[in-house]
Parts: sequence; C-alpha cells; structure tokens
Amino acid sequence: MLSRIKNASSVAARALPRPSSATARMMSSSPSSQLVEPREPHVATSEIPGPASAAALKRLAAIQDTRAASFVADYAKSVGNYIVDADGNALLDLYCQIASIPVGYNNPALLAAARSDQMATALVNRPALGVFPSADWADLLTESFLRVKPKGLDMVLTSAHGSDANEIAYKAAFMHYARTRRGAKSFSAAELDSVMDNKPPGAPEVAIMSFSSGFHGRTFGALSTTRSKALHKMDIPAFPWPRAPFPQLRYPLEKHAEANAQEERRCLEEVERILRTNPVPVAAIIVEPVQSEGGDRHASPEFFQGLRAVTRELGVLMIVDEVQTGCAATGSFWAHEQWGLDSPPDMVTFSKKMQAAGFYHTAELVPDQPYRNFNTWMGDPPRTLLTRAIVEEVLANDLPAHVRDTGAYLLSHLQPMSVRYHRVVANVRGSGTFIAFDCPSAEMRAELLHLMRLEGVNMGGSGETSVRFRPMLTLTKTHVNVFLTRFESVLNKLYRKHWPQ
Amino acid sequence: MLSRIKNASSVAARALPRPSSATARMMSSSPSSQLVEPREPHVATSEIPGPASAAALKRLAAIQDTRAASFVADYAKSVGNYIVDADGNALLDLYCQIASIPVGYNNPALLAAARSDQMATALVNRPALGVFPSADWADLLTESFLRVKPKGLDMVLTSAHGSDANEIAYKAAFMHYARTRRGAKSFSAAELDSVMDNKPPGAPEVAIMSFSSGFHGRTFGALSTTRSKALHKMDIPAFPWPRAPFPQLRYPLEKHAEANAQEERRCLEEVERILRTNPVPVAAIIVEPVQSEGGDRHASPEFFQGLRAVTRELGVLMIVDEVQTGCAATGSFWAHEQWGLDSPPDMVTFSKKMQAAGFYHTAELVPDQPYRNFNTWMGDPPRTLLTRAIVEEVLANDLPAHVRDTGAYLLSHLQPMSVRYHRVVANVRGSGTFIAFDCPSAEMRAELLHLMRLEGVNMGGSGETSVRFRPMLTLTKTHVNVFLTRFESVLNKLYRKHWPQ
Repeated sequence: MLSRIKNASSVAARALPRPSSATARMMSSSPSSQLVEPREPHVATSEIPGPASAAALKRLAAIQDTRAASFVADYAKSVGNYIVDADGNALLDLYCQIASIPVGYNNPALLAAARSDQMATALVNRPALGVFPSADWADLLTESFLRVKPKGLDMVLTSAHGSDANEIAYKAAFMHYARTRRGAKSFSAAELDSVMDNKPPGAPEVAIMSFSSGFHGRTFGALSTTRSKALHKMDIPAFPWPRAPFPQLRYPLEKHAEANAQEERRCLEEVERILRTNPVPVAAIIVEPVQSEGGDRHASPEFFQGLRAVTRELGVLMIVDEVQTGCAATGSFWAHEQWGLDSPPDMVTFSKKMQAAGFYHTAELVPDQPYRNFNTWMGDPPRTLLTRAIVEEVLANDLPAHVRDTGAYLLSHLQPMSVRYHRVVANVRGSGTFIAFDCPSAEMRAELLHLMRLEGVNMGGSGETSVRFRPMLTLTKTHVNVFLTRFESVLNKLYRKHWPQ
Repeated sequence: MLSRIKNASSVAARALPRPSSATARMMSSSPSSQLVEPREPHVATSEIPGPASAAALKRLAAIQDTRAASFVADYAKSVGNYIVDADGNALLDLYCQIASIPVGYNNPALLAAARSDQMATALVNRPALGVFPSADWADLLTESFLRVKPKGLDMVLTSAHGSDANEIAYKAAFMHYARTRRGAKSFSAAELDSVMDNKPPGAPEVAIMSFSSGFHGRTFGALSTTRSKALHKMDIPAFPWPRAPFPQLRYPLEKHAEANAQEERRCLEEVERILRTNPVPVAAIIVEPVQSEGGDRHASPEFFQGLRAVTRELGVLMIVDEVQTGCAATGSFWAHEQWGLDSPPDMVTFSKKMQAAGFYHTAELVPDQPYRNFNTWMGDPPRTLLTRAIVEEVLANDLPAHVRDTGAYLLSHLQPMSVRYHRVVANVRGSGTFIAFDCPSAEMRAELLHLMRLEGVNMGGSGETSVRFRPMLTLTKTHVNVFLTRFESVLNKLYRKHWPQ
C-alpha cells in the first residue's frame, strides 16, 4: 500500500543518516500491537480532503461550520508522527493539531493513562476543584506541572485552555495591582457601588500591555491583547489596552546583527515609554517567547532581559505566554529558560502540548480573599493525568535534547534549500524544532501547503506568509528526511510552474 | 458503620413513602459490583473537614489556594447521590459540584463510556476540531447535543465551559450585529486600521445587556455581564454594558400575584427603555431561566415571553443561559421549554450537568467567514462522549418526569416546614428539584450549612442568604426523606440555640 515511490536522488536524500537504534526504539511510538508508524506517507486520493473526508464534512456542515477544516481524521488509526485521514491517507504530521500533540498519536504511555482506573474516576466524577478537590489532586499537581515548574514559580492555577490561562493570569495581575494600592483596607463604598455597573473605581481602568503580532487567545480579555490578524478581532469589542512594537528582525541574523540590536533597543524604549505614560495604567505585560500565530517572530535573549529589567523597575508584572512554545518544542522545557533572566517572570502560562492549561506564579499573586480567581471546575483532572504521562515521557527520554538535535538537523538542511529555492523559501529561523520560513505571498504559501499535503506531509502556516514547523517532540531525523525529500519535490514543481526555463 | 440513628418521629418522617421498585431500580446508581450507595449518611468525624481532609488541604495549599475548599473528596468511593470524603464520611450530596453532576457519582453508564476504546482514542489524540475533526464527530454531536436540541436551534458550537460558551455566543451576536449593518461589503480600511488598536469602528462600541443578580461566568466578556456579587467582579476591568432590573418576586406567589405582575411589567419596560436608548447599541441580551448564583430568583413565563417579544421587535438577539438550569434539573430538559414561547430564543448556552459546553443556534448565526468564532480545540470530544451517555440516561429513564415528581415531593414537605420554622426558612420556591429557600442572614445560612454537613448532608448557598438544592437528577423520595429528617433536626438545634424558650 505504501507504494508512492519518491525521488531518492535529491539534495536532501543525499545526506540522510539512519537514526541510532536507541533513538529508533525511543521514537517508535507504536501504540499497541495493532498500530505501527508507517515508514513513509501514503496518499491514495487525488485530492485532500478525499471523497470520504468530503462526505463526512458535508454531514458535519449541517451542525458546525466546517469551512476551516483541512480533512477528517481517523484518530484510531493515526500513530506516532502520522495522522491518518478518513480516506486512509497517512500523512507525516508537522502541524500536530495546531502545535498541541506532544509525543505522538496513540502514544502507548498516554493510552495507559487513558485506560487507568484513575482516569475513569476522574472523568465521571468531575469535581469543582476549588471546593471539593480530590484526595489525589496535590499529588497529581506535584507529579505533573510542578515537576517541570519554571524556576522561581512554585504555585500553579489550572484552567481549561490557553486563552483561559491567560485570562486568569490577567485577573491575578489586576487583583495584585489593586492590592498594592489598596493595602489592607476593605473595598470602599464607592468601589462596591460602582463595580456592579462595570464602572470605576470598582471595575477600574487598568490595562495589560501586549505586542504587535502577538496572539494570546480568543476570549474577550485575551482577545484584547491579541494583535495577530484583523480577522481574529473584527467586530468584537475590546478593552482600550496598549500595544508595543515587537522587534522585526532581519535574517540571516549574523548579517544584520547591528540593525537588529538597534531594532530591539527601539522596541524596548517604546515599551518603557508606554509603561510610563499610557493614559490607562498598565498592571502587566504579556509576551510570547516566539510570536507564533503572528508569523514566528523571534527576539534575542537580550530583548527579553530588557523587558524583565524595565518591568521590574516600573513595578509592572511580566507574564510569559508559553502556550505554544512550552513543553520542550524549542529545545528547553520552557523557551524562556534560554533567556538567562536574573529574576524569573512573574507568571508563565501554558496549554496545548501540556494538554492541560494554567499558569505558574508565586504565592504573592494569590488573591487576598478566596473565591476571587475562581470558577466551577478550575482545571481538568483527566487532562492533568495526561500531562503527568507527557512530562514523564519528556523527561525520561530527554526529549529537549532530542528536539535540539533534530531541530539542528532540520535547520542545517533547510538553510541551503532556502538558498537554492530562494524564490519560495526565505528567512529560515527557529529554535529546537520550532522552525519557520517565509513564502513570498499568501497565495504561494497556500499552494505549497496544498502540494505538501498531496505529497503526504501535513503542515500549517502562521502570520500572513510563513510556514511553521510544529512537529511532535518525537520527530526523528528519519522523519525529517521524509519531509525533505517531499519538500524538494514540491519546490521543484513550484519552480517549474512559476519560473519555467 | 452506618450507625447514626436519626429521630424518626419528625414531621417529615411521618409522610415518607417508599419508592416504587422500578424507581428504586432505576435510581440505584450502583456503579460496579464494589460500590453500593449507602442507605443513609455516615459522619465519623466531629468536624468537616476532618483530620484527613485537613491534612490533604494543608499539603495542597502550598500549590493552590484552598480557602474555598469544604473538604477533600474520595471520588473512587463516592457513589450515586453520596459523596465520600477523605475521612470516610459519606454525605448525601445536594450540591453536586456546584450543580454539575447529573446522574450520580460513578454512574455505571458513564463509567462504561469512560472505559471505552472511543474514550481512550479521544483522550490521547485531542483534535483541533475546527481543522481536523474526527470521523465520528458528526455522529457524536448528533447522539449527544442534537438529541436534546431546543426547538428551532439545529446547530451547536462547542467550547470548554459555561463562561466560554457564553463568550462564543456573545461573539456570534457581535458578528451578526456587524453583518446586519455591513451587508455583503468587505471590512473597510477604517475597520482594518482601527481593530488592531482595539478601537472603533473595527473593535466597535456595542453591548450585551444582562440583568441585575445574573451570573454568566468569570472570563472578561462573561464577567462584564455577571452582576451577582461584588467579589466576583472587583478590580477587574469591565465593558460599559448595561444591566436591567430582574423581577424581585414576593412569596408565596399566589398571595402577591398582582404586585408580582406589576414588578415584571416594570422590569420589561426598563428592558425596552435600555434597548431603545442605551448609548452603546445592544446586540443581544442574556438571561438565566432562574438566576442561580444570584440567589435563585425566578420570573414568570409571561416575563420571558415579554423579553422575547421586545427583543424580536427591536432586532436584538436573545441568549438564554441554561448553564445551571439545563439538563432536566427544573423538570424539563431545558428550563425555557416551560415558557411557551411562540418563537425560540436565538441562542441557548449550556455546560455543568451536560459535562461539555457550548451553545445552540441557527444557521443564521454562523459567521460570514471561517476562522472567526474559532480556537485551537473548539470543544471537548471526551466530555462529549460523557454527554452522550448522560443524555441517554436522562431520556431512557424519563428523568425530567422523575425530577418533577421528586421536586414536588420535596416542595410539599418544605413548604409546611417554612411555616413551622419560619425564623430560618423563608420563600421556599423552585421548579423540578431546582429549589431554594432564604435564610434571615448570611451568618444563619453558614451555620445551617455547617450543621447540615455534620448531619451528613452536603448543601450549598446562592446569593447573599439563600440555600439552594442542586441534587442529581437521580435523587429519589428516599433521599429526600433522609434530607428532611436531618433538616428538621438541624432546624430544632438552631431554634433551641437562637430562640430558647
């Protein structure tokens, strides 16, 4: 069945090492005796979505909007780094449910967690964690989130998803801001009177500052800090919160070192100006280690050190949004570990590959009264059981080191391709396997992604014209080779079509 | 072990029928061969939280705020209508994780769903539903949410929790509002320019109207419509959205029929005035069938008919928040079915007992472009598998009829007790088993809830001084009798203490 033979004489294929047997064993990701990861992609339909996917989407369209759907997946048959669709096509998945599958489809360790008695109990008896936590909750938090807690942040407030995680971090910031001004006093009569009318002083005019091109979620508070695309925000009321410029670095970095440093200084000066002069006081800033939805925009450790310095100087909290960068994708468990900060961020938010969401913080950010940063469920014990298994997989197999190795290998092949195919592939950049490049236009990107899918590789875009790699942490050099062969084939097709000789 | 003998000669106990064998069989809720629901509560510790709960909470407090916690639960041992705590105390649970356990702890049908292969696959391969839905997603939606869809609303957008569900309903309302004004035109240059700065016209000044005492969640958009308690909102920025008065009915209803009708007319007039004159245009109103967190405030079907009429007349959307009332608790699957509306609400939101969240709507409320009411996960397939099992339990056992029967029985005993113990129990009210009464003060309520817990009955408050019943749908008259016996004992204690003869 895996009969689509690819051209083996490509630039990429020439330098393909075999993975070590230890790596192969570690990364085999075969979830059960039935499922084995295919050796290469298999595409049997002339279009994706194929007929079975199209029929399933047509049925689904009567119930939910399906216009964003790429295809319909058969998750029971998907395995490791391969997603299988309803037509039986097996695609190497470098997009991974918008960067949120950490260690492979049907990972055996996760399946064991899913089939445990503890999981069944957690699923059918969903607690209101703030009021009636389960007896195993402290252990579970310790064995999952706390096992990988960022340095200096010992507490974790759990939530449902990344947008939610950012919003509870914002609420913690606003309550902290108010307490630093109110001190030990009770709420005033004026505050109590005004708050139910959504008016100051009870519902104060105070802000979270975010960065141009940043993405922090879609709920109303999170969306007010999201600045990725107009379509994400259009027609939705937003809080009058400020945005600062995020550095627009030029590539290759070595060639533009001075200009990039100047750009980062300019942005830091603008951050300081906003924090000092914004008409609405800023309680916290939020920043991604790599702006992800906004187009894989990076900045240097020095830039983030500068942010930490200015926020500490001005008493503004610093929230690092690791929803997409967290869980080892950049080669360290948290991307911000690579900044070498001399004091930790005040809060770090997470979701996606962690499969459960929340934010890390210090005891200082616990509100002064209970029930303030509160809701019915307050977190997700079944997903936290998965987080525990994910963290164990990541640490036991040293996946951060593996990701650094695989990422370096991928980058080392992408960079020469961006020279050879410079009309399609520009600004190759990344850290770990959190890699991207830019296409010359949104149309060219769409064409490339479509052709890659037909070649058996599922990829996604970010920003207006970027292609992002968001593979699983278990991606190996063998998978990279599968990608490279097909990528070169697609690039040749694009060149033949758009630049015929 | 179940040795605490209660006084059997109470008012309540005198009229205690045995449940029919069919009902007993249906309601037995024994989840496995190991677990059997106790015949009555069992409290072995002199305080709750007992020593084991207190030790567990102390450990948890290093990681999360535990000040709202009542006790630590042992969910593996909890069964049916009884929650077991870390000390082995078994409490009849009339609070049910803030109204969110539908058919009993460790319900066998839910356990079967939790242990299925489909659940394991859904758990370990969490899809980005908007982009790569699973092949079984349309079937699953059809067999769960659509099986109980409110009349006239054929589509369902899924989310993570109730606050989230309300927010995506608000976003749908705002996009619909903009489209009715923009028509088929594209976004204007002014809209595209302004929206990334959170300014109009792209991020418009438009509102959701809610009601005083309403509760719709804790995320920033939802919180701007929540008007339950100052503590829920204090220090958090809010949108300048209007609130209308909710009728303050007087009890017993028969005695105050004319005054109550006048109160509802007054509120409806104020709603119309706000919708016509509010400085910020109102895209939608949101209302609970029974204001729950706000203190179990009811209104008549005529009031809701009036809301539907005025919103239709003025082209304002009507969102019914059934997060707490939904899933049969009031004796019909959706509480709003009891209003006899001649046209359905535009949207109905749900969560809690459904265990999965979202909102029902018509095709008209699908945004004009994809990716607009979008996020990474878009819903929760494992929880939807539970919803399917819950819906089957509710429909196969006609739990709405059972709830009406049990609720009528409970009300028929509470009402005479509110005469006999009128210094503690006032304004008994409710529909189905969604029942409440008022205490004379918050302090008296706290004392009552504490004593009830020590008697083996777990209950919760709502609003400032109300006690709310939020039992499972599987509550039987036998359970009601257990409650009534202990309730009378507690009331006698309170009388002896506060009004000694």
